[in-house]
Amino acid sequence: MEEMMMRRPEEECGIFGVFNHPEASNLTYLGLYALQHRGQESCGIVSSDGNNLHSHKSMGLVADVFGNQEIFKSLPGKAAIGHVRYSTTGSSVIKNVQPIMVDYSRGSIAVAHNGNIVNAQIIKDELEAYGSIFQTTMDTEIIVHLLATSKAISLQDRLTDALSRIQGAYCLLFLTETRMVAVRDPNGFRPLCLGRQGGSYVVASESCALDLIDAEFIREIAPGEMIVIDKNGMNSFFPFKKVDPTPCIFEFVYFARPDSHIFGRNVYQVRKEQGRQLAREHKVDADIVIPIPDSGVPAALGYAEESGIPFELGLIRNHYVGRTFIEPQQAIRHFGVKIKLNPVREVLKDKRVVVIDDSIVRGTTSRKIVKMIRNAGAREVHVRISSPPTSYPCYYGIDTPNRKELISSSHSLDEIRRYITADSLGYLSEEGLMSSVGAENAGFCTACFTGGYPVKFPRLLDQDEPQMGLFEKEIEK
Amino acid sequence: MEEMMMRRPEEECGIFGVFNHPEASNLTYLGLYALQHRGQESCGIVSSDGNNLHSHKSMGLVADVFGNQEIFKSLPGKAAIGHVRYSTTGSSVIKNVQPIMVDYSRGSIAVAHNGNIVNAQIIKDELEAYGSIFQTTMDTEIIVHLLATSKAISLQDRLTDALSRIQGAYCLLFLTETRMVAVRDPNGFRPLCLGRQGGSYVVASESCALDLIDAEFIREIAPGEMIVIDKNGMNSFFPFKKVDPTPCIFEFVYFARPDSHIFGRNVYQVRKEQGRQLAREHKVDADIVIPIPDSGVPAALGYAEESGIPFELGLIRNHYVGRTFIEPQQAIRHFGVKIKLNPVREVLKDKRVVVIDDSIVRGTTSRKIVKMIRNAGAREVHVRISSPPTSYPCYYGIDTPNRKELISSSHSLDEIRRYITADSLGYLSEEGLMSSVGAENAGFCTACFTGGYPVKFPRLLDQDEPQMGLFEKEIEK
Amino acid sequence: MEEMMMRRPEEECGIFGVFNHPEASNLTYLGLYALQHRGQESCGIVSSDGNNLHSHKSMGLVADVFGNQEIFKSLPGKAAIGHVRYSTTGSSVIKNVQPIMVDYSRGSIAVAHNGNIVNAQIIKDELEAYGSIFQTTMDTEIIVHLLATSKAISLQDRLTDALSRIQGAYCLLFLTETRMVAVRDPNGFRPLCLGRQGGSYVVASESCALDLIDAEFIREIAPGEMIVIDKNGMNSFFPFKKVDPTPCIFEFVYFARPDSHIFGRNVYQVRKEQGRQLAREHKVDADIVIPIPDSGVPAALGYAEESGIPFELGLIRNHYVGRTFIEPQQAIRHFGVKIKLNPVREVLKDKRVVVIDDSIVRGTTSRKIVKMIRNAGAREVHVRISSPPTSYPCYYGIDTPNRKELISSSHSLDEIRRYITADSLGYLSEEGLMSSVGAENAGFCTACFTGGYPVKFPRLLDQDEPQMGLFEKEIEK
Amino acid sequence: MEEMMMRRPEEECGIFGVFNHPEASNLTYLGLYALQHRGQESCGIVSSDGNNLHSHKSMGLVADVFGNQEIFKSLPGKAAIGHVRYSTTGSSVIKNVQPIMVDYSRGSIAVAHNGNIVNAQIIKDELEAYGSIFQTTMDTEIIVHLLATSKAISLQDRLTDALSRIQGAYCLLFLTETRMVAVRDPNGFRPLCLGRQGGSYVVASESCALDLIDAEFIREIAPGEMIVIDKNGMNSFFPFKKVDPTPCIFEFVYFARPDSHIFGRNVYQVRKEQGRQLAREHKVDADIVIPIPDSGVPAALGYAEESGIPFELGLIRNHYVGRTFIEPQQAIRHFGVKIKLNPVREVLKDKRVVVIDDSIVRGTTSRKIVKMIRNAGAREVHVRISSPPTSYPCYYGIDTPNRKELISSSHSLDEIRRYITADSLGYLSEEGLMSSVGAENAGFCTACFTGGYPVKFPRLLDQDEPQMGLFEKEIEK
Repeated sequence: MEEMMMRRPEEECGIFGVFNHPEASNLTYLGLYALQHRGQESCGIVSSDGNNLHSHKSMGLVADVFGNQEIFKSLPGKAAIGHVRYSTTGSSVIKNVQPIMVDYSRGSIAVAHNGNIVNAQIIKDELEAYGSIFQTTMDTEIIVHLLATSKAISLQDRLTDALSRIQGAYCLLFLTETRMVAVRDPNGFRPLCLGRQGGSYVVASESCALDLIDAEFIREIAPGEMIVIDKNGMNSFFPFKKVDPTPCIFEFVYFARPDSHIFGRNVYQVRKEQGRQLAREHKVDADIVIPIPDSGVPAALGYAEESGIPFELGLIRNHYVGRTFIEPQQAIRHFGVKIKLNPVREVLKDKRVVVIDDSIVRGTTSRKIVKMIRNAGAREVHVRISSPPTSYPCYYGIDTPNRKELISSSHSLDEIRRYITADSLGYLSEEGLMSSVGAENAGFCTACFTGGYPVKFPRLLDQDEPQMGLFEKEIEK
Repeated sequence: MEEMMMRRPEEECGIFGVFNHPEASNLTYLGLYALQHRGQESCGIVSSDGNNLHSHKSMGLVADVFGNQEIFKSLPGKAAIGHVRYSTTGSSVIKNVQPIMVDYSRGSIAVAHNGNIVNAQIIKDELEAYGSIFQTTMDTEIIVHLLATSKAISLQDRLTDALSRIQGAYCLLFLTETRMVAVRDPNGFRPLCLGRQGGSYVVASESCALDLIDAEFIREIAPGEMIVIDKNGMNSFFPFKKVDPTPCIFEFVYFARPDSHIFGRNVYQVRKEQGRQLAREHKVDADIVIPIPDSGVPAALGYAEESGIPFELGLIRNHYVGRTFIEPQQAIRHFGVKIKLNPVREVLKDKRVVVIDDSIVRGTTSRKIVKMIRNAGAREVHVRISSPPTSYPCYYGIDTPNRKELISSSHSLDEIRRYITADSLGYLSEEGLMSSVGAENAGFCTACFTGGYPVKFPRLLDQDEPQMGLFEKEIEK
Repeated sequence: MEEMMMRRPEEECGIFGVFNHPEASNLTYLGLYALQHRGQESCGIVSSDGNNLHSHKSMGLVADVFGNQEIFKSLPGKAAIGHVRYSTTGSSVIKNVQPIMVDYSRGSIAVAHNGNIVNAQIIKDELEAYGSIFQTTMDTEIIVHLLATSKAISLQDRLTDALSRIQGAYCLLFLTETRMVAVRDPNGFRPLCLGRQGGSYVVASESCALDLIDAEFIREIAPGEMIVIDKNGMNSFFPFKKVDPTPCIFEFVYFARPDSHIFGRNVYQVRKEQGRQLAREHKVDADIVIPIPDSGVPAALGYAEESGIPFELGLIRNHYVGRTFIEPQQAIRHFGVKIKLNPVREVLKDKRVVVIDDSIVRGTTSRKIVKMIRNAGAREVHVRISSPPTSYPCYYGIDTPNRKELISSSHSLDEIRRYITADSLGYLSEEGLMSSVGAENAGFCTACFTGGYPVKFPRLLDQDEPQMGLFEKEIEK
Repeated sequence: MEEMMMRRPEEECGIFGVFNHPEASNLTYLGLYALQHRGQESCGIVSSDGNNLHSHKSMGLVADVFGNQEIFKSLPGKAAIGHVRYSTTGSSVIKNVQPIMVDYSRGSIAVAHNGNIVNAQIIKDELEAYGSIFQTTMDTEIIVHLLATSKAISLQDRLTDALSRIQGAYCLLFLTETRMVAVRDPNGFRPLCLGRQGGSYVVASESCALDLIDAEFIREIAPGEMIVIDKNGMNSFFPFKKVDPTPCIFEFVYFARPDSHIFGRNVYQVRKEQGRQLAREHKVDADIVIPIPDSGVPAALGYAEESGIPFELGLIRNHYVGRTFIEPQQAIRHFGVKIKLNPVREVLKDKRVVVIDDSIVRGTTSRKIVKMIRNAGAREVHVRISSPPTSYPCYYGIDTPNRKELISSSHSLDEIRRYITADSLGYLSEEGLMSSVGAENAGFCTACFTGGYPVKFPRLLDQDEPQMGLFEKEIEK
């Protein structure tokens, strides 16, 4: 899914927290490093020493922002939460780096958020009408305002008050001077899991982060569950009205790491099964199966296994990608793709090639890749996509462009095939995807494929798309 | 005043703004550069392009933070305000860099503040009780909250509402999408002046900032005055209850630049007159008069002129001071002073020396300097201070330590003299200071000398000092 | 080959040059980016505008060092050469970043070198005896000294003079004001190829660098060939005594990129064939074959194909690796490996696993990986190495540790197996490797496996190992 | 001397060394900090631990380049030398930062140089003809080449060999593994002094550097003297042919720090006497005397004292100057001067002002300053220069522009006066300058005033100026 370059403010994040560990901030840094694929633009950690919160956050990769032993001296204490984030804008949005940390009537609190709140603008307008000020353009700030205006006595009740007001997708980690709280929204859109490292509790977006710090996986935090951890241990609550869970199917398709265990399954194995199912649905007479690395590898292995067509690495990925690339003025063909991928001519030459990708967004990258494979000598190029056509934008935390930019929302299968210049094109069916996940009877959010959004959101009369992106315009104000 | 190293969060700042100039942010940068002596730790500029506000701020000196033409492209528009600030803590307080910029019900607003609000904690508690959250530890944030909760219709009325609630010292610059507002508190503690550059209005803490950008000095903004500038021009209001103005005498003694014109007088000339008066009050039979450079130079010139004792530069200042100094483990005598000042042995040798400084805070630096002068061969060292003993902390925007650290609050003149190892010690009298300023009949705040605080503040029962510093503890939370 | 952390000064580099292109330095930057895997610590470019040479070089990755359009303005001209380099020491070795650029009697010249000169110390001693001074610890500097002392008239003759003196491995790119020269040593240890981009010539260590800039691959530069390119075109010479070529077999095993074409073959296909041959030689009854990513992937695919055992990705690599990692004080098991690799538990659980790696150096990393796979639930772990035991250090440009640190130089197969805790261990035979390369009758340097060094070097009487590393001790002097 | 912006590569430097001190590199850093006024663009330190030399050098101010305790761990040992340098070009000239450190036949040696070699190009051509290569554009590199080609046995003899070949101005500090050598050229152009700190020897360009580290001033190193310091102590030699010393008079006029003691006199007192003599020679009826700060202050004090006209600070200097200034596109009058100096209007208004500066170079800055003073309300502006007209460039280590840019080389006194728009203009006479220095009978180099160059240099037939600047063109090659 090379093409997803335009993103919404709050989307695509990873969160991590640890409670009751003498090296809480150091472990959080490692946890964030393992979650780096969920957000590469900025990161931050807030720690608690029992009396005060301490913060360090910055634009940049985890290994750069925290690449200095000294920083951990400024993050003392036995509890810490952290956040990695992708966002669209430049260095000036340092104010939007999470965790957010504020003072309010009950002391200090920090929050890290993965997800997207669909009624953010309405609540923001209302809060402003009552006199609230907003210093960031993140909808996470709304949660803290709601928390601060709650009259409830206990933290747990105040959180319930606040979160009952918001709709959408959220995995949240809160840190106060003495407590860490983890919450997953009732629909359970995003993954969140609980682990143990010696006598300490750990919470992470994906289980791969537990692995890196030698933490034991206990279980996933359930949809609608709130877990409050303090010196006396852990308590679990279900304060919200129960709804049918709708975890995000796209975490399996593309977003999560293959070594993670989410929504009850291992991602790698689900992806391989998608590939197998894809082979069953869209057989083709071909010589080799190649993936778009790295995300397409498991599905391509599955496709090869099921189809009996040999798996090859026909495209090599360059991993030393920097922030920007200075392109020469004289055009280089397919430059944007070439800087990441290079074909192995000897593998592709005169071959009928099946290319496996996880999704097609705008189609422009797919088109460049097909042409590059053909230039390398392939006789035929058959594109197989391990998910159904992505025709609807996501409003729950995956970055997808507006509907009009999604090629499959306005073009037929054959039009897309012709645009990307493939000899044939096949998408995994919705049923095929569900069966790959082993979820024929379980609910998943498939809104990006079907338009069936499980959590409704306000739609203004004169707008083609829901008013989700209102915050966007305020970036950089 | 070498010793004032411990400071309060909000104190010691400079502000600058320009309205209706095609290079508003560039001029603001130059204005801040001229005000750099009012705050060296961080700086920021917010500009308005008529529809949106834009911000760039960072830890560091003005010439470093804005030393790149590209930055000004990210600060478009014909209006801008800026801020320089001194604060006590390290790189982690980027969140406390001004101007503050927020969204509220009426749009966006930015504010830059020079001063200190004495009822900050009380208002903060109250705001938090009603649900406000605080993201910085600056009392400036309170002002924006009060603004946001006002129900008044016009910006001017909302500002009046908000500022009527706060007590203390404040010079404020506000910038909205379409307006710039300058306010000086009714007591007029800090200086603020108005200028014109072609068709644009300029506001600055000191007149030296107008000089650099070729702006014409119009007048000082009056105590209690609010000036609203928009595309239709400038309007002046006096919305607050009138009180007797008490401008800060210490701006003359130490803080302002000698080439500035504040409170109706030129700083250099006032300082020279302080020196003359000091000579009248504390004559001594000596060979040379030397200043502690740079701040002591004008008073030393006055002392020399009045006493007839020749003025010499007996101490040379090194101006290439960096952020930190790596001291060798083997002690060097008077290292802390030596890194800044070096005696001219040939000038001092066998001389009876009068040393002029503007104030003594803890006494430790004065002691080192006296010893250094004596080591350089001086026969006698007579210390003369161009202000009365600083016995009380300032709560209106000058950084002074707690009372117990102020040597003159607990020691007699002779004890101080013995501590700093001077042959004699003389402070300018309060009356002498007043007459130097030409202010026998005009009010000035002299609280740091007398303890007579013109604006009252809450005093908690169990505290020795007023609860001004409550915000301090929250730094770094 | 995760373990090769100790390296020799000159080793493991990539070079790239372009002549007669309006964007010569920009293309060189892209070429270096494609060669980044050959050296990640520093990089540099020298360009010629026809009259003068211009240089920019620094510690850091290509995308960081040249990530700014402005830099290319300081590198004008239609010819440029560049270099990427791995070295062991820190920021202080900026002086050792290549290309070297000097003035000598004939003007200016810059040189970029990939390889290692085995008689460097002897020539250095001799040059110093005649009065030469050395400002770097790179043996490349020797080449420039020899060039400067040649009395020959033409550049080509001076180069022949100089290079006739040196022994060892070298691919060299020289740039003068008006010419670019490429030389490959008579043994042809390292790869070097020639391409064309429109009307310009391009030279690169590997063909993958030609691909990125859309250059056409013309041919490999032959062992012992010198190519001189100037405004009149290209001339080829063979000025050295002819010897049997011995290209480095380890480029195929580990070092080159799989999409490159070197020594007449595609790297990916050679590696796959190594895997197939490995399966033939060391069959084992197992459930899955997994690679150590990324370098082990092609051989694992070959092994799987030949053995019929399914290929799986049992280890996931984290590609966001920074310069340093702050390890917590509390030990995390296998931390050094874990920061790069994480097992997919669901893939490995209860499985008999064949793990494919390209080589074992010290054995410590292999041991950690085997334990990690076993901790993830594998029932058996069978290690298969796609090359023979690495028992001898390389002195021709691949970084390997001293002999005593090479586990296979002092331990039997079974001792190594036990040390790395594998259930079985199999190395590819030398004959098997040769047949994989299709080189039964062609010469290759296999010194690292056999100790048969094709180019001799001075051996001091009292030394266990040849005196290659003399330069090493001078680093940091 | 605000105007001297164009400089030669080697010029305007400071050097410092310490031998036999446990914190040698830390003391050297402090010494360089005290000499920062002699060169602000780059700095470096080389230390010896007895067996090896260690180096750290970079572009930037001393306090920034060495502002980190860690750096001193990489500079171990009990001996160190350091260098501060001014040069004209940008970041790319890191290769030209001193000290130079090389390996040659006798081991390693580092050298720091203050001065300028007038026969550098001739020797360089000769060395290149014999095969030397040059990696920098500093003539200091020539010295090391000469040293390396000497066949003499002892270091002292080799140094004598080498230095006998060069002509010009040089103060040199050499450091080998076991020795430190200080040399001052026979003419003694630049100052160099010897001190003691406990059991260690210290050498510095100016005595102010001894003061900062509590070192005792022993004596100045004599013209033509070579001092060799090793573990056995110090030895002094006079290996060169004796000539009449001609120390640089301009060190007194402008370059040295006022608190330094050089050439047998205190700089501050010499400058004050220049001012007194200037008053005797160029009386004028005026109201106030003001200096151009900081360099003009002592002479202005002297002028005021002698003339009886009161001394005032009419111009205030801003010391927070950064590397570059972003000037607005709309012109600000006298911007280049204003960014450093601001007039005190109240001091200057309606006054007849005598302005004291140390020299006039191009006249452009003086012109801006005179206009600025007049704009501030001065009735008359009388410029007095505390040295004779600077009509000839310096080739011995002070940065002055080419002759045609020196206004006094081609314009009469009255033309200059009219150009700078002064009411009157007076230069100190040559005799007056000599008597101020107390040097009526002692030799001083006054070539910049008289054109009488005490050390001859090659003059090419077709050149207007001597061929000194040949190195210049090679910068940036």
